[in-house]
This record gives sequence, C-alpha cells and structure tokens, in this order.
Amino acid sequence: MNTDEKYMRAALKQAEKAAQCGEVPIGCVIVCGGKIVGRGYNRRNTKHTTLAHAELIAIDKASRKLGDWRLEGCTMYVTLEPCQMCAGAIVQSRIDRVVIGTMNPKAGCAGSILNILQMPEFNHQVEMETGVLAEECSSALKCFFIDLRERNRREKAEKQRLDEGKMLIKTV
Amino acid sequence: MNTDEKYMRAALKQAEKAAQCGEVPIGCVIVCGGKIVGRGYNRRNTKHTTLAHAELIAIDKASRKLGDWRLEGCTMYVTLEPCQMCAGAIVQSRIDRVVIGTMNPKAGCAGSILNILQMPEFNHQVEMETGVLAEECSSALKCFFIDLRERNRREKAEKQRLDEGKMLIKTV
Repeated sequence: MNTDEKYMRAALKQAEKAAQCGEVPIGCVIVCGGKIVGRGYNRRNTKHTTLAHAELIAIDKASRKLGDWRLEGCTMYVTLEPCQMCAGAIVQSRIDRVVIGTMNPKAGCAGSILNILQMPEFNHQVEMETGVLAEECSSALKCFFIDLRERNRREKAEKQRLDEGKMLIKTV
Repeated sequence: MNTDEKYMRAALKQAEKAAQCGEVPIGCVIVCGGKIVGRGYNRRNTKHTTLAHAELIAIDKASRKLGDWRLEGCTMYVTLEPCQMCAGAIVQSRIDRVVIGTMNPKAGCAGSILNILQMPEFNHQVEMETGVLAEECSSALKCFFIDLRERNRREKAEKQRLDEGKMLIKTV
C-alpha cells in the first residue's frame, strides 16, 4: 500500500462515519508533514448547513491546528470529487495537492463540470491525482444508495399497509 | 431608498466591522421574509481560516436560524462579488437571489472570471443583481487599501529610522 492509498483509507474511514449517521458517505483527511492535521465527514443533514461538507470540515480543523488560513504544504485526500464550493475552498486555502477517490460526473468541479482546482485565472493552482482506491470509494456510495432505496421502499410499503388497515377499520 | 439599497446598507455596516478589525472590508446579510436571518463580515486573518469569508459566516448563521441547509426563499446581499468558494456555497445552499455591490474583476465568480451562480450544468441557478450601492461598496475597499499602504509605508520608514539609529550607536 503506497502513501496515497494509506491516507485514502483514512478518508474512507471518515466516509463510513457519515454512513453511520445516515449521511451520504463522503470522507476527507488533510495531511501535512506526514501527519493528519484535519479530518471531516459529510454531515450536511445532521448539522443543517451546507458548510458541513467533508472537505470544509477538514479545512476548518486543519486551519485551527496549523493556526493559519494558508494550508500551503498540505495534501487533501477525499473520497469523492469536490463540488464547486469545496473546490473553491481548496484553492482559497492554497492546498498544494488533492488526491481524489472517485469522480462525480454530474456535479464535480475537479474536472467533470469544471476544473476549478487548475484554472490559470486564479492566483493558485492545485496538483491533482484521481482514481486512488476508486473502486472502494465508489462502492461505499453505491451501497449507501441501494440501502437507502430499499429502506424507502420498505417504509412506503409499511405506510400503505397501515393506511389500508385504517380504511378497513373505518369500513367495518 | 429601495429595499435592495436598504439591505445593502446593512451589508456595508458589516463591512465596516471587518475594517475595524483590520480585515478587508467585505460584508454580507441574508434576508428571508423581510427579515435579516444571517449577518457576516470577513474575518479570514483574525479567525485563521479561509472559511471566515463574509458570505460563509452569513450562510452558517442563516442555516442555524432557519434549521435547514436549504436557504430557499432567501436573498443574499454582499458588498463584493463572491469568490469561487462563496459562489459555490450560494449554489449549494440554494439561495434564490444574490444582490452584489461592486464587482471583483480579478477573482469574482458571479460573472467576472466565471459565473458559478448561473451555470445550467448545476442543479440550481441563482437570480442576480449587480451594482447596488456600487460606489460606496467600492470606496470602502479603496479607502481600506490606501490606509493599509500608508500604514505599511510609515512602519517601514520607522523601522529604517530605528535601524539607522542602531548603526550610529555601533559606529560611535
């Protein structure tokens, strides 16, 4: 297991925590000088704020730890391609390098819809690596959505059963 | 004074607070149902995090107040055109409308470098109005940078004076 895979596994652990809270499993860690200085997992629904994306939480923690908004010398590992907000935050915080697990063709902004990380018009460009443990990162998301659909289907069927029961009682 | 100007004045008040802390004067308010539900001013240096941009602070406060990451029905008033991170956060939090004071031709992402707010590829587009109290919003920034340059110039001259004094003592 190489260094990128090692830290992507740490990001995947964060993604598992999100799934345990019923959130879409996206996880992130930020590494500086061989140490993890920030961890985050998606908590948008439980925290009721769009700022609770995994990447933003990790950036906030790393900035607190290092005492600087500039995260120069840092590498971010994230299981899913960042959205426009998180890609923007990566550029704004001047992170050197981003390692991505799986791409997000419908909304990702590190190459899919836009590549905010590497636009020459901005005052910082980010080195990028994609497809690290892509299969595992993608599977975590797929399993989550299969479970979610199955749970929704069961809940709908249960509700229908109860409603039919009530109707029967009324009729009798 | 129309409604947009009224709330842009409230955003300008926030920008003043930033200047008082020695931060670049950018201010923001979010309005829902005729009430301000979130205020924010730039505190990037004092808070040591890139997430302390005015818009992100206001989004965080509005989400807490309304108990939802979806800020549908909200209008944001911001004194300077948002950067790529903040424009992304506006789309992600599904704000209906953004009213901008002055544009930021070198880094703005609501029409200058990109228009992240209105890209058809994303699942949400934002109504936009620019140039509201543009002169005042722009002046606040210009005055801040003139003062900053003057302060830096004075500090440099003072340092040079002290260094020359030390040299003189050594020589004597």
